[in-house]
Amino acid sequence: MKLSSKNLHTRLDQVYDAIVVGGGMGGLSAAIYLARYGLSCLVIEKGKGRSLWMQDLRNYVGLDPDTPGRDILNHATKQALDWGADYLRGFVEEVVDEGETFAVKVKVGKTDSIYPVFHGKYVIAASGIMDHLPQLENMQNVYDYAGYTLHVCMICDGFDMWDQKAVLIAGTEGQINAAFVLNWFTPYISVLTHGLCSVGDAMRAKLAEHGYPLYEQPIVEFLGENHHLQGIKLADGQVVEATTGLINMGSIYHNHYLKGIPNLEWDGENLVTNDMAQTSHPRLFALGDLKKGLNQVSVAVADGTLAATQIWRNIRRASAPRKWEENLAKLA
Amino acid sequence: MKLSSKNLHTRLDQVYDAIVVGGGMGGLSAAIYLARYGLSCLVIEKGKGRSLWMQDLRNYVGLDPDTPGRDILNHATKQALDWGADYLRGFVEEVVDEGETFAVKVKVGKTDSIYPVFHGKYVIAASGIMDHLPQLENMQNVYDYAGYTLHVCMICDGFDMWDQKAVLIAGTEGQINAAFVLNWFTPYISVLTHGLCSVGDAMRAKLAEHGYPLYEQPIVEFLGENHHLQGIKLADGQVVEATTGLINMGSIYHNHYLKGIPNLEWDGENLVTNDMAQTSHPRLFALGDLKKGLNQVSVAVADGTLAATQIWRNIRRASAPRKWEENLAKLA
Repeated sequence: MKLSSKNLHTRLDQVYDAIVVGGGMGGLSAAIYLARYGLSCLVIEKGKGRSLWMQDLRNYVGLDPDTPGRDILNHATKQALDWGADYLRGFVEEVVDEGETFAVKVKVGKTDSIYPVFHGKYVIAASGIMDHLPQLENMQNVYDYAGYTLHVCMICDGFDMWDQKAVLIAGTEGQINAAFVLNWFTPYISVLTHGLCSVGDAMRAKLAEHGYPLYEQPIVEFLGENHHLQGIKLADGQVVEATTGLINMGSIYHNHYLKGIPNLEWDGENLVTNDMAQTSHPRLFALGDLKKGLNQVSVAVADGTLAATQIWRNIRRASAPRKWEENLAKLA
Repeated sequence: MKLSSKNLHTRLDQVYDAIVVGGGMGGLSAAIYLARYGLSCLVIEKGKGRSLWMQDLRNYVGLDPDTPGRDILNHATKQALDWGADYLRGFVEEVVDEGETFAVKVKVGKTDSIYPVFHGKYVIAASGIMDHLPQLENMQNVYDYAGYTLHVCMICDGFDMWDQKAVLIAGTEGQINAAFVLNWFTPYISVLTHGLCSVGDAMRAKLAEHGYPLYEQPIVEFLGENHHLQGIKLADGQVVEATTGLINMGSIYHNHYLKGIPNLEWDGENLVTNDMAQTSHPRLFALGDLKKGLNQVSVAVADGTLAATQIWRNIRRASAPRKWEENLAKLA
């Protein structure tokens, strides 16, 4: 059922089998499986996730390569609701381990917010990441190209950059190293730092050895039309010619609500998980971009399958077996 | 490109980056990724795989729950071909490790067969399993229900059996244990051995304690209409009432062509793989039902992503970096 500030009070006394933080590809997969295991679950989605911005999903079995992320999310949200999951728009502020259950505190509504607390035996952290984008005065100019011809994922979109003039936009010297992977797809790489970092002599020499020019001026404007990039104008007036690009400026990890849980095993900002997407906390699972591994839709969807299945196994094994009561006397 | 006996000779001198054995969900996912990494690959599909028989895929993010396996396979085959993969109908007879490459011997054509040998740096084993079905004189009677109301996968379809009268068809005593998982979904379970195994006293007692009757006569006919099961007629004339069922009679593993490769790590008939779907042989990957883990479409699709990505990494790291030649003198 779709929950809102109007009806969510009906769920406050309930203990969900699982609360899924994040209604992206992984979280919705988990919800579909949980519901089909007959388990109660609540998906809490803050909106504006990474896959919502995805203009097309090129590499997912069964969907046309021009399918927008938004369409898949809408479809999968309906799938999860149809099978019986609950769904709420809100922002998870805190998760507290209460021993047998987790308390999940949510902010609902941007104005006149309310702060309900839901309870679940398990929590699935599926809240993902968000890519840092270059900050320009006119952010609409960035959004006009990001996700179209200006990509954030080389695995997803490297193929579509093949042998094109490309910019690599990096915010730290370390992030410039992506040039030496991007060159699998195209050697025509200009590196832009947007004025965010200094670049040491060794990196300068390495770029020069590969023929990749380095531009350290801030970006002023992306040039082109109809989402097709043609060039990048820098603060000193120069225009760098490019028809495509990769933004590699790191990510915001939506994992703040887990930081209070003791003894969680992290690898940087990623959660370490086992082969069933379980973290070092036996009742906490992590999916997709939030866990260590490839940031791909297919992987997040499989992670949802694994987490839901392990939760089902745990709950099933702890439950009394259902007997065919009418037969007991007859068969005894 | 679609290959056939007419044109496959054009590919016999080529060394593919990867040869994918099996054009099911996992193999096609691998092919889509490989092609989008700009790697050459050949998918060899024998036909009649497990997912082809799937009448609906209930739990896959982005597709309607009544989508037949056949439609997804056709769609994904086109996806892989469109991105540049080769595809051949044939049966892989043998894979021989030649040190740097594998030689893959294929039988093409049921009559007047030819036996071409293809070469690839990597092999992806994605040939899956096939469920054993009860053998009746009239197999069409089995096919009329299998995949509709008579299921082979509890994770996929347990939900659709909820609280219905169900049969569990098992071929060994061990397989009867599925009753004690199936009872999560319904307690109204009749166990049928189809006359294939003897059942010990402990198992008989356990079934009786749960109220699950045991029928040891061979099945003669599935009764019902329009794929909707109503009962099962046994050899002694009894009819067991049931509207759904689970066939749990084990699987045929399509892994014969790997049995000659030394030092592969197996877990029964499943290949043991690491977190990138790589077997204990560094140039051999295994996906989906053939590897240890859950037999789910979402998992196979993610496995294809992982295997293709690791193969790309290996090949990329072994390749000379592409430089922007025109700039080299300028930047030196």
